[in-house]
Amino acid sequence: MVKARYYEESLMLHALHKGKLEIVGKVPFKTREDMSIAYKPGVAEPCLLIARDPEDARKYSIKANTIAVVSDGSNVLGLGNIGGLASLPAIEGKALLFKELGGIDAFPICLATQDVDEIVDTVKMIAPTFGGVCLEDIAAPRCSEVEKRLKKVLDIPVFCEQHGIAAAVCAAVINAARVLKKPLAGVKTVICGAGAAGISTAKMIYAAGVRDIVVCDSGGVISASRFSEFGEDKLELLEFTNRGGLNGTLADAVKGRDVFIGLSKPRLLTEDMVNSMAKDPVIFALSTPEPEIHPIIAKSCGARITGSGRWDFPNQISSALAFPGIFRGALDAGAKEITEKMKLAAAQALAGQVSDRDLGEEYILPYLFEDGLAAAVAKAVAAAC
Amino acid sequence: MVKARYYEESLMLHALHKGKLEIVGKVPFKTREDMSIAYKPGVAEPCLLIARDPEDARKYSIKANTIAVVSDGSNVLGLGNIGGLASLPAIEGKALLFKELGGIDAFPICLATQDVDEIVDTVKMIAPTFGGVCLEDIAAPRCSEVEKRLKKVLDIPVFCEQHGIAAAVCAAVINAARVLKKPLAGVKTVICGAGAAGISTAKMIYAAGVRDIVVCDSGGVISASRFSEFGEDKLELLEFTNRGGLNGTLADAVKGRDVFIGLSKPRLLTEDMVNSMAKDPVIFALSTPEPEIHPIIAKSCGARITGSGRWDFPNQISSALAFPGIFRGALDAGAKEITEKMKLAAAQALAGQVSDRDLGEEYILPYLFEDGLAAAVAKAVAAAC
Repeated sequence: MVKARYYEESLMLHALHKGKLEIVGKVPFKTREDMSIAYKPGVAEPCLLIARDPEDARKYSIKANTIAVVSDGSNVLGLGNIGGLASLPAIEGKALLFKELGGIDAFPICLATQDVDEIVDTVKMIAPTFGGVCLEDIAAPRCSEVEKRLKKVLDIPVFCEQHGIAAAVCAAVINAARVLKKPLAGVKTVICGAGAAGISTAKMIYAAGVRDIVVCDSGGVISASRFSEFGEDKLELLEFTNRGGLNGTLADAVKGRDVFIGLSKPRLLTEDMVNSMAKDPVIFALSTPEPEIHPIIAKSCGARITGSGRWDFPNQISSALAFPGIFRGALDAGAKEITEKMKLAAAQALAGQVSDRDLGEEYILPYLFEDGLAAAVAKAVAAAC
Repeated sequence: MVKARYYEESLMLHALHKGKLEIVGKVPFKTREDMSIAYKPGVAEPCLLIARDPEDARKYSIKANTIAVVSDGSNVLGLGNIGGLASLPAIEGKALLFKELGGIDAFPICLATQDVDEIVDTVKMIAPTFGGVCLEDIAAPRCSEVEKRLKKVLDIPVFCEQHGIAAAVCAAVINAARVLKKPLAGVKTVICGAGAAGISTAKMIYAAGVRDIVVCDSGGVISASRFSEFGEDKLELLEFTNRGGLNGTLADAVKGRDVFIGLSKPRLLTEDMVNSMAKDPVIFALSTPEPEIHPIIAKSCGARITGSGRWDFPNQISSALAFPGIFRGALDAGAKEITEKMKLAAAQALAGQVSDRDLGEEYILPYLFEDGLAAAVAKAVAAAC
């Protein structure tokens, strides 16, 4: 019912404004004198300086604060593969988040292709305008492949949205451990879902200090005995997850675990499974549009802390907590890439935004619109650059 | 001296603001409720409608009012081939003109390539976001080739900047004829320069009713005797220009002509040549950064009307008089392309903006910042669509 109202109001809003973004001038441009300074003939000067030293583009042009939010529309919200054109309203929304939360000028580039080579070539060709690239709503594993290849050819940060959710989950795990009063190294975690987000999350919580991680995909626990099924990305997981050599199903994997991290499909986590977890379990169920288990059901099964993608329940775990600050920091530092170290710094800064006094079962992460949130994350990211 | 001051002030302006454009939201986006309407989950509704009917993108997204200003930086202002990155400040300036004069959200796409195939492929791939494409500061003949190919593959207007200057020149010729009290069909014209702008201008003034047109390139008069030198574009000129079968140099071509249109190189028109023209000659010298003849010298040789690219002399003939209104009209009408008829309508509307009472030797075209100028052009363009 609530959703139906949002759909209706959203359609009215989009019809009224014809999109959500506007491109405006930020310099005087009302007279011929203004034009002579901002445009011909004066503009020849910054143009020539950039021609002489390409680094000067960050001094004299929108490259300083502008990023492309690139999508092929192959995995938009919960809608699936609707194509680049139809993804435009969603990507505009993402661009707005960058602006409102991080002060970043983000422009949606919605593509007429879903081919990896063509996506890589296109982004490479339009890169001069931009100070960074955020890949958004591109289906796995294509998104990681595109990211990997663009990172090699571009000298500006390239970032796939899954790292945003990974940083937010990592912050949530760090603060859940604070609530449980356990060292991170002693927290037993299980990640349900070995897509791009699951893999990025596993790497980030490992980098943060979590030592006991088991990851499950649709075939069950990611274990050495299944190595012949895996591509490069899952083989990499074997290097630092499932050190106990566990085999079996998700049900086997969750037994005795402290933290469940769901980045997979609706309703995969049953009440029985929650009951089989360690005492005071932590349940982060982030599948969209429906979570792996409803937070209220998880609570009723004894979960001490729950988190979901929804803001109308405690502990919203959203990539938007992380990505505006990550890009803000990268742009401020003039970073050529966003490193693992910078992403971890973002997660730690995000966790650090919740003071010991405020921290509690129902408040392990800051709210999205808290003042200074992106700035604090940005500062940590820039320092780690 | 004046120029040096503009260069200096321009550099300060660009350094202070780090570019001239900003991307801002035009919908409420400050609370979680706002987000639920403008972004998740509400945004699913416009996305799905566009997925069902691509035409709906013009109803619910920025495609309605957003164009790409695309450059490869191969022919920027008077600076020559400085590359895509270095062209960014200039292309931002063009985008600002679109916004300030036409209310259009224009975004600079500065390319990392100068290859025709790559330019065409790239623009094709990013087209879903845009309601139109303006090709800017791309060297001839590449710009025309890119335009021709993009027009074939895209269902949004594609427009090469030379048509903007052609429309402004055409309006200037129409109103010069009004001042001279001659019918257009009786006006003898010579166009110096057979690049993209010269060719587009020849076509447009012919479409407007001028019947006597001679075009010169660096080899002299474009005439049938030289046909073996010509590509497709100049051969096309032979179909409607130089009907008298003239051969020779520019000096031969200007003899007895009423109107000189310079779209070529500085200082090509000598005082002797002006003296050889018809009585009360009209001299439009539009080469940049320096005109084919200085307007003051042309006047001293007896020119009745002069026009140049400069706003500090009478009769500035600038593409900016035309292109904001042309795109405004095309977007308003939901045009799939900008036709010859629409361009001619723009030129005629531009000329019509000068009333009989105001018309005179020193005022044949409206000023750039006159109220309602782009709107009047847009109305005529939309009606011609």
